[in-house]
Amino acid sequence: MKEISKLLSYRPDIKVVDATLRDGGLVNDFFFSDDFVKALYNANLRSGVDYMEFGYKADREMFDENKFGKCKFCDDDYIRSIVGENNTDLKIAVMADVGRCNYKQDIIERKDSPIDLIRVATYLHTIPTAVDMIEDAKRKGYEVSCNIMAISNTQEGDLRVALDILGQSPVDVFYIVDSFGALYPEQIQRIVSIFEEAATKYNKKIGIHAHNNQQLAFANTIEAVGDGVDWLDATYSSMGRGAGNCAMELLLSFLKNPKYNAFPVIKFIEEHMLPLREQGVVWGYDLQYMMTGILNRHPRSAIAFTKEKRKDYSEFYKEIIALD
Amino acid sequence: MKEISKLLSYRPDIKVVDATLRDGGLVNDFFFSDDFVKALYNANLRSGVDYMEFGYKADREMFDENKFGKCKFCDDDYIRSIVGENNTDLKIAVMADVGRCNYKQDIIERKDSPIDLIRVATYLHTIPTAVDMIEDAKRKGYEVSCNIMAISNTQEGDLRVALDILGQSPVDVFYIVDSFGALYPEQIQRIVSIFEEAATKYNKKIGIHAHNNQQLAFANTIEAVGDGVDWLDATYSSMGRGAGNCAMELLLSFLKNPKYNAFPVIKFIEEHMLPLREQGVVWGYDLQYMMTGILNRHPRSAIAFTKEKRKDYSEFYKEIIALD
Repeated sequence: MKEISKLLSYRPDIKVVDATLRDGGLVNDFFFSDDFVKALYNANLRSGVDYMEFGYKADREMFDENKFGKCKFCDDDYIRSIVGENNTDLKIAVMADVGRCNYKQDIIERKDSPIDLIRVATYLHTIPTAVDMIEDAKRKGYEVSCNIMAISNTQEGDLRVALDILGQSPVDVFYIVDSFGALYPEQIQRIVSIFEEAATKYNKKIGIHAHNNQQLAFANTIEAVGDGVDWLDATYSSMGRGAGNCAMELLLSFLKNPKYNAFPVIKFIEEHMLPLREQGVVWGYDLQYMMTGILNRHPRSAIAFTKEKRKDYSEFYKEIIALD
Repeated sequence: MKEISKLLSYRPDIKVVDATLRDGGLVNDFFFSDDFVKALYNANLRSGVDYMEFGYKADREMFDENKFGKCKFCDDDYIRSIVGENNTDLKIAVMADVGRCNYKQDIIERKDSPIDLIRVATYLHTIPTAVDMIEDAKRKGYEVSCNIMAISNTQEGDLRVALDILGQSPVDVFYIVDSFGALYPEQIQRIVSIFEEAATKYNKKIGIHAHNNQQLAFANTIEAVGDGVDWLDATYSSMGRGAGNCAMELLLSFLKNPKYNAFPVIKFIEEHMLPLREQGVVWGYDLQYMMTGILNRHPRSAIAFTKEKRKDYSEFYKEIIALD
């Protein structure tokens, strides 16, 4: 019997990361108003969230500034315009994608930046570049996590090698990222056990970032909590690419650490997420995402289906099955 | 590590019960068209579902026939008008609620009825009446399950006594019913272990009926599969009271028995469930249901909130918290 965080007690090491702007930004090209971002910052402060991810440090040579909102680039000045000097317990994170980030230039010294944590996102085959980014960020004084994407497509042997390389880097946290929402809880447990071998050996923490293609983002996250994973990603109303992520309102209601409070999350959803949906921003569980999740595929075809406002699920199923 | 039904293999004893008309009927007062019900019957046949629950055997003296659709009463003639003699592998079920059913009169001999399974729904304190209903249905030749509702509110000691009474009855299946959607997977596992003691002693099967208040209906159902539970309730598109139930499309995609096929479910959802939603029938995860789930309460206040089309979640939270 798994006693997830002992249910009536809690593990003080747990860190909750709000990824609403970053993963949610993938849905609306990061066009969040400053008011929205300020209100989210305040909601995170009041709800006891540990880290707030503002978005990506994206390379301006690769991405046109006119086509994306500010959270795609996360200039230090922009973040400071929201958080000031951020003399709070809430830490600030940004994501830096391998191959899509001019990290040497765009990530400045931590002492000059409002950012606390750099989250390096990588696929398994780009680990050496990830390590270079990790070392760069560490030299500049940041906390650093390494988020291994598409974990459901990795082979165990390759994963062990990658974790051994990462273990020898100065990274603080290994992140399990179920990009395709393909995993069931018992698979999460297996993957956590592989991560734990390396985390124990190299004294690292483990995190999880889940997707809701099979309505399992929350279930997989609390499975991971029970397995010893400490860093937990969630988003308000599950906002995130495709089927979205683990819902912050569910996660904070589950965690028993008295510092967490779901009420500001509920209030924010009422005041800011409902209007976003009314504006036509679409995310969340739907059959097309279930299908790509079950087939262990990138959700891009399902996202296109959603954008085209198609509802012919059975035709879509035939289309993607035909690709096999 | 839990190896849910060994993941790549399957347990032939598993039975899938489609509860769409019964639990879904609670959302639209059972006003399903005959075309809808016939198409659902055909979809269940093609998808390999084992049992199709048509609705309730409700007492006409208590419930006004003009206020509810046919699936509230499940006349044998009505069912026969859909399924004919039902010479198929798909069995027919109805639910009989303790205290809301004139079972001695309305449930006829099985040999004269298209119904195969009577599902007796009871709270813990009405077990003696449930046993009388079980014995009555068994005498008439039916398969019988006993669905213990509001399981998250029962004390373990009481539950053991109730299961011991039920164990001595001729019931075939004990059902765990998380009416309030209050339970986390590890609590499901604990409850299953209590049920298993009695099920092993008295040679009964165990079933589960989950609600999606915390987006855990599917997760709790597959947790139960991994714990040895064989009878699994699900509904198309999760249609059911409040936050709804375990989604049939997810469950059939998870189960590896080759007789199950999710495609007819997807097709039915596209052709029949989407129009239902477009007509304004509302169910599914939303914050008000999350709140009653977390507080381990009946969803009636959340259902009222939904019916009034309220969106002031934070006020609702204050209202229900104030009731403590």
